Amino acid sequence: MQLLEERIRRDGVVKEGNVLKVDSFLNHQMDVELFDAMAEEWARLFRDCGVNKILTIEASGIGLACAVGRCMHVPVVFAKKSQSINIDGSVYSTKIRSFTHGRVYDVIVSRKYLSEGDCLLIIDDFLANGCALEGLLDLADSAGARVAGVGIAVEKGFQDGGERIRSRGVRVESLAIVESMDARTGEIVFRSQSV
Amino acid sequence: MQLLEERIRRDGVVKEGNVLKVDSFLNHQMDVELFDAMAEEWARLFRDCGVNKILTIEASGIGLACAVGRCMHVPVVFAKKSQSINIDGSVYSTKIRSFTHGRVYDVIVSRKYLSEGDCLLIIDDFLANGCALEGLLDLADSAGARVAGVGIAVEKGFQDGGERIRSRGVRVESLAIVESMDARTGEIVFRSQSV
Repeated sequence: MQLLEERIRRDGVVKEGNVLKVDSFLNHQMDVELFDAMAEEWARLFRDCGVNKILTIEASGIGLACAVGRCMHVPVVFAKKSQSINIDGSVYSTKIRSFTHGRVYDVIVSRKYLSEGDCLLIIDDFLANGCALEGLLDLADSAGARVAGVGIAVEKGFQDGGERIRSRGVRVESLAIVESMDARTGEIVFRSQSV
Repeated sequence: MQLLEERIRRDGVVKEGNVLKVDSFLNHQMDVELFDAMAEEWARLFRDCGVNKILTIEASGIGLACAVGRCMHVPVVFAKKSQSINIDGSVYSTKIRSFTHGRVYDVIVSRKYLSEGDCLLIIDDFLANGCALEGLLDLADSAGARVAGVGIAVEKGFQDGGERIRSRGVRVESLAIVESMDARTGEIVFRSQSV
């Protein structure tokens, strides 16, 4: 998506260790008008898929997911990173490894808000190693819900999460896929996509 | 706000220990259309206050804050619950005690996204003992930012947070204030407000 790629080029900051900081508009400060444009794109891509609910994970997926819920006129559910003391029979739970924070989170969704009648669009801000997304797919599986697909803002195409998840047959629509980036020059190369 | 009070009466669940569960529409599953109506109300209440930024805290404030940012055409910043390893000179930080989770969080905002030129509207889903809100006010103070006021979805009027913060001279607009609730009967009494 050209609008997002241009914004990443303009305001994204490449740091050593393949870190791409987009916290001025995506995941700390949030540009809601940009979110709306992105949401319209996901709504277009998934419009005929029978989506009845958006699933995301706290925290930085929530703003994007709400924008998509608004466009598609469906509710949004966010999975919670939990203290394990809260986990009981009333929730679906899984474990997600965060490389950023160097720990494993228990992640839960109440059984009331995911069920086998649901057709989900999963939304998140980043896809890199795929651990968070695999956790969300696991929660959907536990509920017997169908997953129409996944909408990602920024995919790090040089990490293996996207390929691993697509190879499972899951449709993943990333609005910007970074092929490579250079912390020294700040250059970012995006994968060319049909849109 | 009548729409929100009606929704709380219909879908809220009162539990022992003065717990009000509104996770079917406010802070786990989210009804984005309701959020938009609430956002319009806050935008009306704070329209002449020069607000240039919304400040909230992860996770359940984010959806509401994004709806307000959309209405008021301003960016949204969410404070992050942090591992203290991340805290350095690039952030404002404070500590917030969570009674729900029985622990103290370090909460941070990047210095890049709060400054003394800012006029903030702080948005959160709940106000009870006021600890989260005091933390956000503390972050605003650290940055030298002005706070036009605070928009809260549900205030527990029988806890002292609202009174303590209003007595500091901060304008707090809660769209529903619960005066009392009864876990046995499920009855919820709201404080009557002028709107």
